[in-house]
Amino acid sequence: MASQQAKEKKQPNRISEYCAKIVDHKAFTTTIITFIIINAIVVGIETYPNVYQTYTSWFYYADITLLWIFTIEIAMRMIAARPTHSFFKSSWNWFDFLIVAAGHIFVGAHFITVLRILRVLRVLRAISVIPSLRKLVDALLLTIPALGNIMILMSIIFYIFAVTGTMLFADVAPEYFGNLQLSLLTLFQVVTLESWASGVMRPIFAEVAWSWIYFVLFILVGTFIVFNLFIGVIVSNVEKTNRDENDDEADMKNEVRELRKEIAELKNMMIKMNKS
Amino acid sequence: MASQQAKEKKQPNRISEYCAKIVDHKAFTTTIITFIIINAIVVGIETYPNVYQTYTSWFYYADITLLWIFTIEIAMRMIAARPTHSFFKSSWNWFDFLIVAAGHIFVGAHFITVLRILRVLRVLRAISVIPSLRKLVDALLLTIPALGNIMILMSIIFYIFAVTGTMLFADVAPEYFGNLQLSLLTLFQVVTLESWASGVMRPIFAEVAWSWIYFVLFILVGTFIVFNLFIGVIVSNVEKTNRDENDDEADMKNEVRELRKEIAELKNMMIKMNKS
Amino acid sequence: MASQQAKEKKQPNRISEYCAKIVDHKAFTTTIITFIIINAIVVGIETYPNVYQTYTSWFYYADITLLWIFTIEIAMRMIAARPTHSFFKSSWNWFDFLIVAAGHIFVGAHFITVLRILRVLRVLRAISVIPSLRKLVDALLLTIPALGNIMILMSIIFYIFAVTGTMLFADVAPEYFGNLQLSLLTLFQVVTLESWASGVMRPIFAEVAWSWIYFVLFILVGTFIVFNLFIGVIVSNVEKTNRDENDDEADMKNEVRELRKEIAELKNMMIKMNKS
Amino acid sequence: MASQQAKEKKQPNRISEYCAKIVDHKAFTTTIITFIIINAIVVGIETYPNVYQTYTSWFYYADITLLWIFTIEIAMRMIAARPTHSFFKSSWNWFDFLIVAAGHIFVGAHFITVLRILRVLRVLRAISVIPSLRKLVDALLLTIPALGNIMILMSIIFYIFAVTGTMLFADVAPEYFGNLQLSLLTLFQVVTLESWASGVMRPIFAEVAWSWIYFVLFILVGTFIVFNLFIGVIVSNVEKTNRDENDDEADMKNEVRELRKEIAELKNMMIKMNKS
Repeated sequence: MASQQAKEKKQPNRISEYCAKIVDHKAFTTTIITFIIINAIVVGIETYPNVYQTYTSWFYYADITLLWIFTIEIAMRMIAARPTHSFFKSSWNWFDFLIVAAGHIFVGAHFITVLRILRVLRVLRAISVIPSLRKLVDALLLTIPALGNIMILMSIIFYIFAVTGTMLFADVAPEYFGNLQLSLLTLFQVVTLESWASGVMRPIFAEVAWSWIYFVLFILVGTFIVFNLFIGVIVSNVEKTNRDENDDEADMKNEVRELRKEIAELKNMMIKMNKS
Repeated sequence: MASQQAKEKKQPNRISEYCAKIVDHKAFTTTIITFIIINAIVVGIETYPNVYQTYTSWFYYADITLLWIFTIEIAMRMIAARPTHSFFKSSWNWFDFLIVAAGHIFVGAHFITVLRILRVLRVLRAISVIPSLRKLVDALLLTIPALGNIMILMSIIFYIFAVTGTMLFADVAPEYFGNLQLSLLTLFQVVTLESWASGVMRPIFAEVAWSWIYFVLFILVGTFIVFNLFIGVIVSNVEKTNRDENDDEADMKNEVRELRKEIAELKNMMIKMNKS
Repeated sequence: MASQQAKEKKQPNRISEYCAKIVDHKAFTTTIITFIIINAIVVGIETYPNVYQTYTSWFYYADITLLWIFTIEIAMRMIAARPTHSFFKSSWNWFDFLIVAAGHIFVGAHFITVLRILRVLRVLRAISVIPSLRKLVDALLLTIPALGNIMILMSIIFYIFAVTGTMLFADVAPEYFGNLQLSLLTLFQVVTLESWASGVMRPIFAEVAWSWIYFVLFILVGTFIVFNLFIGVIVSNVEKTNRDENDDEADMKNEVRELRKEIAELKNMMIKMNKS
Repeated sequence: MASQQAKEKKQPNRISEYCAKIVDHKAFTTTIITFIIINAIVVGIETYPNVYQTYTSWFYYADITLLWIFTIEIAMRMIAARPTHSFFKSSWNWFDFLIVAAGHIFVGAHFITVLRILRVLRVLRAISVIPSLRKLVDALLLTIPALGNIMILMSIIFYIFAVTGTMLFADVAPEYFGNLQLSLLTLFQVVTLESWASGVMRPIFAEVAWSWIYFVLFILVGTFIVFNLFIGVIVSNVEKTNRDENDDEADMKNEVRELRKEIAELKNMMIKMNKS
């Protein structure tokens, strides 16, 4: 039974080992990056209507070819992974798999825009293929959970101001505060400080004299929170580097303590010697 | 006398203990958060006029129900607090109490807008109920007193520029510098760099050739102070983490000093031994 | 001779000591701050034309009174300073002196605007009178010299882009790049990112196809330098706090070295003992 | 053979040494800075058409004179460098050489604008001539390679959004998303937050209801990356100052370890003594 299992395991292993060799080779990554760049150039040229209309079929075949190249790449990486399902432990592999799979699913569909966006998103695969970029994006994403609470706080503030804004200014400025969704969008614009006064506040201010309180309060609260979000990330990063340092210091503290113990022993020995 | 006092204390304690048990239960907080979210959804839907006009009475009863739920919640938390007046030692409890009390006070009033804003503000209670959010906001508010002096400085600069701006440009640009209040609002817009040139300065500059000095000076001074406000908070935070580290170091310094003392003792012992 | 000198010195000292007593009293500073606030309120009310035109003479007398109060204050602080000319060692005293002196010089002049601005500037004296504000401003001003080189660099970049901009766009956009001064003002607007695209670049871009290079390049270079100015101040501040810490560490290093020396001595003693 | 070589080397050395003496003299740098300032003033005055048209020939001779002065300066610095080709080891010298050489190459050309820009660029030589500015710019440029990965990431994000934007909005807003180049320029404008809502999004939003997703997503992703670029530089700078500190600590750790070894030796000696 065990030997049979081993045999079953062995057979796919030979192919898997062969795939792993190819996949781990430097040239493999370089080739894939080359095809991603070709994919990027193709989707770029496609945006020029005259070029696209003249060579439509050419673009169609280029797309099919690239899709199959990426499919084979991912199939090989799946086979190379031992056991195969370990391939899906990495969320980057999930990302690669879904982007390519979606290309196959929508291939016959009529939603041309969705298909084209999918083709553009394949350029994002450059991140999952180039290790240094993957590491960078992983690091960037890791800073997000630390911001969880401040994000919830921001959402509460946004929601309260959006409801209040809709209640107060829906009739005065329907294009900005016409309903809850519009108000949320307008508040996002205001928190980026874009035309908050010249575009949004001044026309409302001309009709509702106390409306400046609403805007000034939101900017003070909103930018104060965004600003603290900033500070939080900086300080947590500096703290992290300091923590490593503190570990060093803790090490040294232990060593100094050990020293004291040994000296205490020495002293005891001396006292004994003195007595003897 | 003492036993009577103890008895008097005991009676309410039984109810208070019972309340404390309920209040401290996890499900209690979860329930309150659920009602706050329901409150948030209700005030959100209220902003859509067609929905609101169709179900006006429904919204009225929902509001009354929520108000009484929150009233009971706060009453229970007050009873749970021993002694009761200790409930008001926390400013968050004051906040909860006032928001709910105001709901009762204005319930019969005709200021519908005030009532509706009060209902929206109840969403803010999410901060006082969720401990991690309360901690975050406490931390944010704690950074404000450290900024006291820079705020006073900012106010002085704003006031001087507002008075000067009104004096100089009241006739040229009455909508921006027509009076002291308008000037202060305009300066707030300028310090956020929103349309300071295209909207505010350029039209004035077309008539008063030297007006650019006023604006460039204000932007340099204003952003410099805001920028230092930034730096101040960052550095004070980094310093704080460093201070903790320094405490560690001071500890170690003491240990090393102790070591020296012990070795000095050892030496003396040796010298004695040598002599003997 | 010496006694006569001592006598000469003694006489004014009695008045000077008396003044010093008054000047150093808490109530003195409080009084002056009160008068500065009154001055601030008076110049604020003056900006309302109807109030000002009705009570013109009242404002005139208020101003004269305040000017003489500040004159007496500074005279007393000058007398309190021993020797008197040491009063002018502090640049804050110079500032106080000049602001008040200018009030006397221009009192009869016809430049009403200059006079009024001088009255407003007296509010700035709040900074020199309140010690904590004076300390803050001193600290802010101290960060400026460290930025000297980056300021020179910024000026060179501004000048080169202003000359180039005038050369290239003077005919296309005379209101933005008509001459060197206008170009410098426009570049200041662009570096604050205010309407750089919608207001300044897009109209020029519509006529000169490659003009985007000029603007994108300037924004990249300009904001990069401003951003490094930021970083420079933050890092220099953090470094300063670290330097203090390093001093501590250097102390400890010396202590550990001393320890080693003492132990080496101990060892030598032991070796001697072993031999004997 | 060797003596002949030495002779050959000696002859130019005499001139080279003479040049080196002049070049290293303080007055040499001061003179060159003076001529750079004169050059800056000349190109500044040239931007005023009436002055330029009246004194065209004067400006021509001034330019020729300055060009030859800088040519002689660089020739001297080349001769002063031993061996001569070592002059080209510094990229600043390359910069100086190319700017001046280009002046000679284009002198007879008809591209007056190119020539004038070259004359303006000579003002940049102030950076290469003033040592403190050169050091500052070197330091600024050194921070760029550390940002390499984040720049690549930014380019990928920009490219994907530009292709998508062109696909989606080319017909709705041809002036902003008409083709790939325009889209990239528009995205650059959006990432600086300039008129992103009032100018770019609102008109598109009026026709395409879901277009806000595109803009809000791009701003969140774009500013998040720019913000991390910021943080990255700050933290890497703080880390660098901490690393120096850590070196110190590592030193001390070694010292403490040495101490332990010595005490262990002492102990062994004691044990031996005890036995004997």
